[in-house]
Amino acid sequence: MDKHEVIDAIELADQAINRRDMAALMDFYEEDATLVIEPGRCAYGKEQIAQAFGAIFEYFNQSLSVSQRDFHVIEGGGVALVVCKLSLSAQGMDTSRVSMERKPTYIFRKSMDGKWRCLIDNSYGVDL
Amino acid sequence: MDKHEVIDAIELADQAINRRDMAALMDFYEEDATLVIEPGRCAYGKEQIAQAFGAIFEYFNQSLSVSQRDFHVIEGGGVALVVCKLSLSAQGMDTSRVSMERKPTYIFRKSMDGKWRCLIDNSYGVDL
Repeated sequence: MDKHEVIDAIELADQAINRRDMAALMDFYEEDATLVIEPGRCAYGKEQIAQAFGAIFEYFNQSLSVSQRDFHVIEGGGVALVVCKLSLSAQGMDTSRVSMERKPTYIFRKSMDGKWRCLIDNSYGVDL
Repeated sequence: MDKHEVIDAIELADQAINRRDMAALMDFYEEDATLVIEPGRCAYGKEQIAQAFGAIFEYFNQSLSVSQRDFHVIEGGGVALVVCKLSLSAQGMDTSRVSMERKPTYIFRKSMDGKWRCLIDNSYGVDL
């Protein structure tokens, strides 16, 4: 099976996160997208999402690094659901690296310009 | 928080499953919805979904019973993501009852008639 375009979009967003490139990262999202910051707390719309990523980058000492793998893409009703595995790592307060694994759930729709953009970014998957 | 309308829709669909009411069950889905039958196998569109449920009902000896709880609803970009817990039980080949638990992921959109309908029904959640 050919690699789905949403996987390219996710990989570009991960690269944007890893170099703290907010402009590139924001192009990943639809204008009225929602980001799950943590269970029970969401950022609504690009402005809040950009603020949330600013705080996330700060929280992880500007050292956050993410990568994703094992993508499953399911299309239906004009949207695409993506389930995958996410590895996060960052510099701890001392010199050690901290890391964690998650199973995110993303929802995408193809924009007017032909690019798939994220409607809901839920890195917590079913652990809400 | 008021109960979200998508939860009412899910509960009505569960009741339809439990009484094997295919017409009521099909009203839960958008015309071009996708149902994950099992990891790696999907039904696309209402006709395939109805066929799949016919086979599922048969597989469970017309005794399948489902109920769901612990709903989390996240809206973004005009769609709603639902994460919850699902209990399934059915009559086994002998007289015993078999049961299982899942953490599904659903995607909904509000239809033109004002009713929320399911675009992607993935009862396997992140376990694809």
